[in-house]
Amino acid sequence: MTFMNHADATTDPVVPPEGFTPDQLESALRSVGVNRYHNLHPFHKMLHGGKLDKTQVQAWALNRYYYQAIIPQKDTALMSKMTDREMRREWRQRYFDHDGIGEDLGGIERWLVLTDALGLTREYVQSTRGLLPGTRFAVEAYLTFVRERPLLEGIASSLTELFAPAIHSERIAGMLANYNFVEDSMMGYFRKRLTQAPRDVTFALRYVREKARTPDTQQAVIDALIFKTEVLWAQLDALYMAYVEPGLVPPGAFKP
Amino acid sequence: MTFMNHADATTDPVVPPEGFTPDQLESALRSVGVNRYHNLHPFHKMLHGGKLDKTQVQAWALNRYYYQAIIPQKDTALMSKMTDREMRREWRQRYFDHDGIGEDLGGIERWLVLTDALGLTREYVQSTRGLLPGTRFAVEAYLTFVRERPLLEGIASSLTELFAPAIHSERIAGMLANYNFVEDSMMGYFRKRLTQAPRDVTFALRYVREKARTPDTQQAVIDALIFKTEVLWAQLDALYMAYVEPGLVPPGAFKP
Repeated sequence: MTFMNHADATTDPVVPPEGFTPDQLESALRSVGVNRYHNLHPFHKMLHGGKLDKTQVQAWALNRYYYQAIIPQKDTALMSKMTDREMRREWRQRYFDHDGIGEDLGGIERWLVLTDALGLTREYVQSTRGLLPGTRFAVEAYLTFVRERPLLEGIASSLTELFAPAIHSERIAGMLANYNFVEDSMMGYFRKRLTQAPRDVTFALRYVREKARTPDTQQAVIDALIFKTEVLWAQLDALYMAYVEPGLVPPGAFKP
Repeated sequence: MTFMNHADATTDPVVPPEGFTPDQLESALRSVGVNRYHNLHPFHKMLHGGKLDKTQVQAWALNRYYYQAIIPQKDTALMSKMTDREMRREWRQRYFDHDGIGEDLGGIERWLVLTDALGLTREYVQSTRGLLPGTRFAVEAYLTFVRERPLLEGIASSLTELFAPAIHSERIAGMLANYNFVEDSMMGYFRKRLTQAPRDVTFALRYVREKARTPDTQQAVIDALIFKTEVLWAQLDALYMAYVEPGLVPPGAFKP
């Protein structure tokens, strides 16, 4: 038995008694991405490297759909905690990005374009019948976290967007190059996120730098970001377990 | 790649338009256990069959501790929804069983006796620092479910106790026979549950049979029990993934 470890709890930032400066806090948050972001997960590497077969890519798209689907609930939960009108007007762009507005049908629709093209019916995808329980629990943990924790921690949990553009551009290039069943038209979701995520994260990072000024709140925002990396990591763990190795599909979940 | 499937979604009971009789409902609930209870999981078989090493048994006890630790929160959440005093007085026995009362220190303490004897410090176990995120998300999904769903569904989710005595007696015998680091004094939790679970489940089953009289509520109680089997299954999936195969320990989790 070999144990593959990507990070050690001892690498997680600990706020000193005197606290961090805003720049130190930002560095600490970025280090969480270096040590814990799901680009380090073997499923991610297989996906981009062309090592999956079509049914494994279907399983990924099917499960990841549920994460996409709850994003508007997550963002409106955050907005429901904002007393400041300007802040809600800023944040609602994220909500529009996913549910659509005007001509733009939004990110969930773009994800369904991907699952359509992979040969999954919308009825099946949207029913979430075939979802892995590990996906469901991780995704719903994110929603519960954002609903129950203070606004500052909810916003901090969105900072995985700091690390997203790199993964998205790698994904577009890798999937197009490596899978004959993936076409450019299926990559709309990721292409759009290349410009959306940096815009969103600028606001969130500024907010966290400004509001997290005590050692306790600084540790809380770091822990919120760690929590979020665990939500993403656990989704790939569930996929790997069920569809790569050992290939143990839980009762009721999607079967290739 | 081989896919091991233990149950198919098509084996899950579907309530007919005319509904089930109470006996039919009970049969349907019992069939969920046959097809989905975690005694079917390979980790469970390894645990009882002596196929794990001591660090893998430590990982199991450490993670399962978190499930034990939230049981009193789960039961008091249910009690907070009960308007009937007699019902609360009935249900609180479960709460006493875990938090202890009088001379009895309760099930959580009995679990800590097990983790003590396995060489894990109480500080480490109770901090939940080494927990697998998959464990945390599954366990907290159970708590969220019980808090947010109607009382009837919360009670129905407890009916995995119908299937527990068999697994507990198998566990006591299997672990004592197969591991030289397991002694009789460590099995107190499971030995106690042999008498507690049947007493508890008698009340819960009677309640569900009596209150779930429409097709919709009958389907809801079946789905609640399915959900609960997924909570248990996902915990063993996370252990198997991290500590058996492929042995991918998520960042920050317990390392053997």
